Amino acid sequence: MRLLGKQEIEDIAVGAALLGTGGGGDPYIGKLMALQAIEEHGPIKLIDPEEVPDEAVIVPSAMMGAPTVMVEKIPSGEEAITAFHSLQEYLGEEIYATMPIEAGGVNSLLPFALAARQGLPVIDADGMGRAFPELQMVTFYLDGLEATPMVLSDEKGNSMVLNTINSVWAERLARGATIEMGGSVMLAIYPMKGKDVKRSAIQKTLSLEEEIGRSIREAKEKNYDPIDAVLKITNGYRLFEGKVKDINRKTETGFARGTATIEGINDNKNEELELNFQNEHLIAKTKDKLLCVTPDLIAVLDAETGMPITTEGLRYGARCIVIGMPCDPKWRTEKGIATAGPGYFGYDVDFTPVEELVGKGEK
Amino acid sequence: MRLLGKQEIEDIAVGAALLGTGGGGDPYIGKLMALQAIEEHGPIKLIDPEEVPDEAVIVPSAMMGAPTVMVEKIPSGEEAITAFHSLQEYLGEEIYATMPIEAGGVNSLLPFALAARQGLPVIDADGMGRAFPELQMVTFYLDGLEATPMVLSDEKGNSMVLNTINSVWAERLARGATIEMGGSVMLAIYPMKGKDVKRSAIQKTLSLEEEIGRSIREAKEKNYDPIDAVLKITNGYRLFEGKVKDINRKTETGFARGTATIEGINDNKNEELELNFQNEHLIAKTKDKLLCVTPDLIAVLDAETGMPITTEGLRYGARCIVIGMPCDPKWRTEKGIATAGPGYFGYDVDFTPVEELVGKGEK
Repeated sequence: MRLLGKQEIEDIAVGAALLGTGGGGDPYIGKLMALQAIEEHGPIKLIDPEEVPDEAVIVPSAMMGAPTVMVEKIPSGEEAITAFHSLQEYLGEEIYATMPIEAGGVNSLLPFALAARQGLPVIDADGMGRAFPELQMVTFYLDGLEATPMVLSDEKGNSMVLNTINSVWAERLARGATIEMGGSVMLAIYPMKGKDVKRSAIQKTLSLEEEIGRSIREAKEKNYDPIDAVLKITNGYRLFEGKVKDINRKTETGFARGTATIEGINDNKNEELELNFQNEHLIAKTKDKLLCVTPDLIAVLDAETGMPITTEGLRYGARCIVIGMPCDPKWRTEKGIATAGPGYFGYDVDFTPVEELVGKGEK
Repeated sequence: MRLLGKQEIEDIAVGAALLGTGGGGDPYIGKLMALQAIEEHGPIKLIDPEEVPDEAVIVPSAMMGAPTVMVEKIPSGEEAITAFHSLQEYLGEEIYATMPIEAGGVNSLLPFALAARQGLPVIDADGMGRAFPELQMVTFYLDGLEATPMVLSDEKGNSMVLNTINSVWAERLARGATIEMGGSVMLAIYPMKGKDVKRSAIQKTLSLEEEIGRSIREAKEKNYDPIDAVLKITNGYRLFEGKVKDINRKTETGFARGTATIEGINDNKNEELELNFQNEHLIAKTKDKLLCVTPDLIAVLDAETGMPITTEGLRYGARCIVIGMPCDPKWRTEKGIATAGPGYFGYDVDFTPVEELVGKGEK
């Protein structure tokens, strides 16, 4: 167990935005909520999965909806507490700790705000090791855990307890409700036992995020290249360097979908990179070469500062470096690829590990 | 208290189809389910609202969705029991009795099937005295009672507990979920106390339905006109006689919407009646005269047998008589008309009581 203060939250926010691969919502909102909660309630306890009793009840907390909506509709934090309390009451058991379901921007940090306000610890783990747009896209689902009973709450005071036959139905019904409820809601979801966290969650995600964020922050003062540092920490690859030339983005059926075109500079002069995203970046390719494919991670970083840029933060003319990182091995299984690989998102592309696509040693 | 056997259910089904004003689903399905439940579990107890203890918990049961879908997707009855049990568990209190929320076809009879299988009485009352397409269109809403906590269950095994800030939100979220769940679901809704039933429900609806059904059944053997008999029981008016010439019907956003054109015969020769419906018949008018407007009741009866015809049962060439009946006074209040009057359904027509439209004494 260790205590997280404001600096740690700032660093985690940066690392979460990077692992969030462009999605997961604006980390700024989640960060503000977490910082404010620390201001009011003091530092937050971060515990290791190994410290969680096997039979303790753990309930991850998350926001569901399109990030473009979340930016306009900032949550008060009350919805999260309502969802959490409703699920606790429904389960009839005390909740021991919370954790993020994804390493995305806003969803990495909202659990901290909830934990601070409820006096609960946060577990150093998550359900993706990255961000993904749908509720069944978590290692918990790959390992046979259920998304429900789950609770959705909106800022108006409406809430719903879902009990579904599987996590795909949970996604479908919750997505429909999210749209009806105004585009974003708070969830208390995937209630599980401590032993499930140990078995199924991706371990130490929050520490990894913190390390990424700290490296980027310290790069300037310690005079090293932040992108090299990030690649080293994440076993990642430099895929492309360029300027944002075109962004095509629309919010439909509760998702922000689109493509971005990046015009090459330096080593990539006369080339163009196309990024396809659905909340998160899913495919990075040039005219003749596939560079990185979901479930591997694609992040767009500011070429100068190394700071990650979200899909909604992509601006015309921005100079950036696109990197690719291998996903957790759980995602490279048959079920993992069926759940969150390119085919699921409608791309006629086979998954190939990023290290094979870029050629080993080109790092 | 009295016991209802098969004949009573047959009669109630006919009366419910008539008060259902064309909507509420095919009464045949609800009737089959109720008859089968009686076959297996014996007669059903019908109790008067006055017999219900003031503090007893009452939970109406209903199906939600487009009748056109219900016909294709016959419920097993298990969904209703699941919804009922989930709500009982959620409330943490034993449910004393059930009742219909509407006097529509399928929804008048489903509570009998549930009651028989659960050994519960049915209360001789409902929340509309007719059928309407949305969940807030009940006298319970007019009287400030809440639709939630409510439970929705589908035939696949998915269910949801809703808690909304008002019944309009309950309608909105449940409607969206119903569409996602395949077009029809079972509800346990508007949990209330016995004293609320006495104060807010429309009293003796089931006895009225039975009386209507019995009159139509006995007309032939006792040699009287079934339509005259129905008009006498319901204080109704003969509006139009003709043949169905055209039906325009589509299922959208969970409703069966459309219009039917009836070509006049006998007294109505050279005239045409237009019926507008959204699950239920809402407006009856000729080229120059408005004849009956929601919340007053419009029913289409077979010209020969007096049997009511549902909107989905309207067939080209069918000879029919259209009747209008005054609604319960609760619907003629300002809130009642705002909730279920012509303006709510998008018609640029003011509500005028049917007895004024047809001119008193023209009965």
